[in-house]
Amino acid sequence: MSENYHPLSEAEAIEHAKKLSALFSPAADLVCREIGDGNLNLVFHIQDRTTGQGVILKQALPYAKIVGESWPLTLDRARIESEALQLQGRLCREHAPQVYTYVPELALTVMEDLSDHEIMRKALMRRDKFPLFAGHIARFLANTLFFTSDLGLNQQEKKLRVKQFINPELCKITEDLIFDHPYTDAETNNFEPAIRNAVEQIWKDMPLQLEVALLRERFLTHAQALLHGDLHTGSIFVTETSTKVIDPEFAFYGPMGFDIGAVFANLLLNYAAQEGWSRNDQDRRDYREYLLQTVTQIWERFAAEFADLWDRHLVDRMASTPGYRDNYMQRLLQDTVGFTGAKMIRRVIGLAHAADLDKIEDPLAREKAQRMTLAIGRSLILRHRKVESVNEIVSIVKQVSGDENQS
Amino acid sequence: MSENYHPLSEAEAIEHAKKLSALFSPAADLVCREIGDGNLNLVFHIQDRTTGQGVILKQALPYAKIVGESWPLTLDRARIESEALQLQGRLCREHAPQVYTYVPELALTVMEDLSDHEIMRKALMRRDKFPLFAGHIARFLANTLFFTSDLGLNQQEKKLRVKQFINPELCKITEDLIFDHPYTDAETNNFEPAIRNAVEQIWKDMPLQLEVALLRERFLTHAQALLHGDLHTGSIFVTETSTKVIDPEFAFYGPMGFDIGAVFANLLLNYAAQEGWSRNDQDRRDYREYLLQTVTQIWERFAAEFADLWDRHLVDRMASTPGYRDNYMQRLLQDTVGFTGAKMIRRVIGLAHAADLDKIEDPLAREKAQRMTLAIGRSLILRHRKVESVNEIVSIVKQVSGDENQS
Repeated sequence: MSENYHPLSEAEAIEHAKKLSALFSPAADLVCREIGDGNLNLVFHIQDRTTGQGVILKQALPYAKIVGESWPLTLDRARIESEALQLQGRLCREHAPQVYTYVPELALTVMEDLSDHEIMRKALMRRDKFPLFAGHIARFLANTLFFTSDLGLNQQEKKLRVKQFINPELCKITEDLIFDHPYTDAETNNFEPAIRNAVEQIWKDMPLQLEVALLRERFLTHAQALLHGDLHTGSIFVTETSTKVIDPEFAFYGPMGFDIGAVFANLLLNYAAQEGWSRNDQDRRDYREYLLQTVTQIWERFAAEFADLWDRHLVDRMASTPGYRDNYMQRLLQDTVGFTGAKMIRRVIGLAHAADLDKIEDPLAREKAQRMTLAIGRSLILRHRKVESVNEIVSIVKQVSGDENQS
Repeated sequence: MSENYHPLSEAEAIEHAKKLSALFSPAADLVCREIGDGNLNLVFHIQDRTTGQGVILKQALPYAKIVGESWPLTLDRARIESEALQLQGRLCREHAPQVYTYVPELALTVMEDLSDHEIMRKALMRRDKFPLFAGHIARFLANTLFFTSDLGLNQQEKKLRVKQFINPELCKITEDLIFDHPYTDAETNNFEPAIRNAVEQIWKDMPLQLEVALLRERFLTHAQALLHGDLHTGSIFVTETSTKVIDPEFAFYGPMGFDIGAVFANLLLNYAAQEGWSRNDQDRRDYREYLLQTVTQIWERFAAEFADLWDRHLVDRMASTPGYRDNYMQRLLQDTVGFTGAKMIRRVIGLAHAADLDKIEDPLAREKAQRMTLAIGRSLILRHRKVESVNEIVSIVKQVSGDENQS
């Protein structure tokens, strides 16, 4: 940690914002609010009272707090986050916040104010629909993944990127909390007593755990593209017409399917959570149909955009061999399905939950939604190596949730 | 490049050797011989005339010369080589030369004198047998690969090793010369006019090239373990009782099967080369049988030693899931078979050949051996994703070489 590092006060945050003379006049009357959740970072929203113009200052804290626990965490994650944001911005300007500057000694990123946007998870809990979202996120995924992989980036430059984004501490959180602890009676686990029998079933399910071990290996070894690394619906800002992906502090070189699966998992656990959020059966059917259509559309648009990039920007001669692209896309879909399942299960058993499920007030509806999330996750993981079409995700979800509904 | 870097003279090499007072007395009467091939490195053998005690000084040159071409090459490869040697030595003392010191500004490694050993390729061309070799190389492979992978090394420390051994320039040589150029009419290619029709067949063989594209992807993305990266029989020093693996300047994190396949490929191209080296059919049959037995034994001993390390030193809880190890070993064998084939084909079509084949004087025998090498390599690559047992390598080789003999 730099000697100059210290958590900023609101007054200091205003001073740093003013140095950005391009945004604010020297005499600007600025107001500052700290809007972070205080677990990992300070987030200052600074606004010019006269013009309304704003800016975000995000500063990493040297520790993490999750559910009351606290452990030290490298400030290098702020460098990784700001460098990932800048790279994602170059590759997909529309869907990444703009970074104005990064101050290494303060682990401080100064970036675009997105306070006209809303966190997607909250909107999904209200059953809002975003007809443009599938196309937006597909474009973000296709461009950031293709152009950081050996397909779209010179293979030697890619190796330097791998080095730049080596991220052991943040990867360890994922390795533990997604690919290990939920499958054993680990201290970090956090689940409701009502579903203990379903959780214990998973702890004993060795065919499931074999598939999870294979997914864990993919996460540990497959340096395919620069991932966002934590692309749940809490890392996505939306309006009706705009989608912005934020918070890539878990960025590292890993399997592409992990990012796509993160989006799918969070749509599908919201699907399960509609047990609690829909006011009636019709609402629930309708919104679930929307969520499944969104999953299908994301894959289809991602695949189309990725294929288009492949046609126009492929830098690897051997990858143009007939049959290779189909083989590549099928394996990518299979990875995606497996990671989708793993990301669903961890949100019910593991340390960090999702508000979609946890904020359901009716305990019976909450239990039903959690059990459904586990069952869908389990089926996706068990089937992932044989999947050939995105429609299989839809049929697995419908089949498993239907079974649950009848029980 | 450091300002102090310059290629050493023999007198300077002696001065550096003397600084190692532990090896030589200040008054020692030292003699120096430069024994490198001058393509990539200077190699000084320095010996005490009185005691016979010796030492090797290996200095990287800032360029590479292969078949007359010259291109600049980073001196960082000397750091990578010395760090890989030291790590391999810690993991498998018996089979790696000892490094005494490394001088960064001169890209100079001072290491154990192995001049009582011989380059294995030369011995194979004389049909010498090394009954201990299979066990030795299996031990080297098992220990260096297991303990640098996520199986035997803490997953966070492993990521720092990945970073330490990012090796873009040397990897590019492999990516071009093994996984691209042999499959197209590339300028770097170098093959004899007599086999042009077989080479053109490979250039048109799209099912083969699909498998090569998949192997190339494994090489580019699968950060499984720290590889030697160039483990042909010219990188192995042998005596009847000792095996030492040298020259790991291509070291990087890649797929384990690439190292194992390099050993297999060089044994199998010697198999093909016995067309020229065996004095009669009986000799040829006998030595070929020895080579195939060696391949089988290496795999069996490697698998046994790897399984033993897995039992005793596994650091990843999820990898102990029932069924995972069998799945892992089968995929490792499949990778090995594919890389074996790729490393055979490049030695016939690509830039850098093997003396086993090229030094055969009789042009008909040489042509036959080269065609056989291509045919075996092709069959191994085409079959690699379905292989279940090492015996299939033996049957593929026997079948393909038998076909060749009849033609």
